[in-house]
Amino acid sequence: MSGALRRVRIDLAYDGTAYRGWQIQPNGATVQGVLEASLARLSGGRPVKTRGAGRTDAGVHARGQVADALVADGLDDADLCRALRAMLPPDVRPLRVATVAADFHARRDAVAKTYRYRIDGSIPGNPFLARFALHHPRPLDLDAVDDALARLTGRRDFSGFAAAACEVESRVREMSEARLEAGPGRSIAFVLTADGFLTHMARNIAGTLIEIGRGRFAPGRVDEILASADRGLAGATAPAHALSLERVVFASGPPSGADDPWPIVE
Amino acid sequence: MSGALRRVRIDLAYDGTAYRGWQIQPNGATVQGVLEASLARLSGGRPVKTRGAGRTDAGVHARGQVADALVADGLDDADLCRALRAMLPPDVRPLRVATVAADFHARRDAVAKTYRYRIDGSIPGNPFLARFALHHPRPLDLDAVDDALARLTGRRDFSGFAAAACEVESRVREMSEARLEAGPGRSIAFVLTADGFLTHMARNIAGTLIEIGRGRFAPGRVDEILASADRGLAGATAPAHALSLERVVFASGPPSGADDPWPIVE
Repeated sequence: MSGALRRVRIDLAYDGTAYRGWQIQPNGATVQGVLEASLARLSGGRPVKTRGAGRTDAGVHARGQVADALVADGLDDADLCRALRAMLPPDVRPLRVATVAADFHARRDAVAKTYRYRIDGSIPGNPFLARFALHHPRPLDLDAVDDALARLTGRRDFSGFAAAACEVESRVREMSEARLEAGPGRSIAFVLTADGFLTHMARNIAGTLIEIGRGRFAPGRVDEILASADRGLAGATAPAHALSLERVVFASGPPSGADDPWPIVE
Repeated sequence: MSGALRRVRIDLAYDGTAYRGWQIQPNGATVQGVLEASLARLSGGRPVKTRGAGRTDAGVHARGQVADALVADGLDDADLCRALRAMLPPDVRPLRVATVAADFHARRDAVAKTYRYRIDGSIPGNPFLARFALHHPRPLDLDAVDDALARLTGRRDFSGFAAAACEVESRVREMSEARLEAGPGRSIAFVLTADGFLTHMARNIAGTLIEIGRGRFAPGRVDEILASADRGLAGATAPAHALSLERVVFASGPPSGADDPWPIVE
């Protein structure tokens, strides 16, 4: 095996139900953990570190997570992708592998991320969505939700939607998209795109939008939360299992996710 | 509580992953078992027997299973449906409950059933379909599969597609529909409607169609299997997790399943 290393970008989709989130933990299976274990096996036991674009919480899914890693030059991108597919379980799927610049950094180079929060509004509950959507059979006022979503866009201090534990210097983020998606069978989704998300931000926004849909908060509550930075004004953190990291956009290279123009390895 | 009983029809959808099939077993959770346990609790502990239209195997799902039961007159249909929804787990969902004639029999009165076998043909595998579809990334010859499906329709002796353990007097069934459904992202499904299905028949047909799609059998193999009644000529029994009982049609009353005209209980 050559001693030369190259940096690869690995795009992944996963069902997060069985994992304690993306990031490696001392106890319990994580997506990063199973990925690094497979990469280490492919490197003859040499430990391989990965960096993920989004630190998804326990139970959160992804259709477009992106990680980077320094790997040995022994396998080309297509063979590495095939090998990872063969080694990883059915709930963690490598979509593609591509060699990138040595200084590529999946988290720092991400210029936007899209999260999607799904709600199954059917009365009985769709058993095939139970792992992927919040069952909320009572009707939501979608006009009020639309109104609230429009108030989220722009460059804002999102402190009021952040978990207390969130340790970052600035809580100002640019939200470029905040929209309602209507699906079949009374299913809806909140689609949020921003240049960054604070800890629990997507789930705290979802919890607030649900309260607004139920009529317990007025749409203007969003303005109050943003202006006051008071977490106590927002709704409860919505359950993790209905959230998915759909897409990551980079300044150079294609975005991840379903519309990705990269060819799928045959 | 009044001693009067009435017969109800209960339409159900379920994710069968966690169950040893529909039918009650001495060991292990079954869909019929959890349904009867809930009905018994609602009847003050009196045991309640149910009869299912289709005896789905372990791991098989349903969007349109139908059961009947004799229940106490204490709760009306809508309240019984709501109570069952509250008691049953998220993977077993009662869609509706309706009072039917005292002699209604979910299995004997079913005049047709539709089963659907899903295949995820995407290269990496869709992690959100992993519980519900067979991952088969190699391309299938869909023209050959179409040709084979057309040979299945009509009144036939399906012995060659039945499990040896299948104990029925006649193995002649009328297959009224056998078609290929193309979905998004290289997903396909085999849709089979017949007046009855023998043990493992849908899965043995699916296994044979996959071999035909791979080019290992010619489409005419279907004719040989039907003519010879030789199980040895058919493909392997395809995995259960990709199969779903979609719909049951009755001589009187609406069919079950997604197109059902019955109102959903609000």
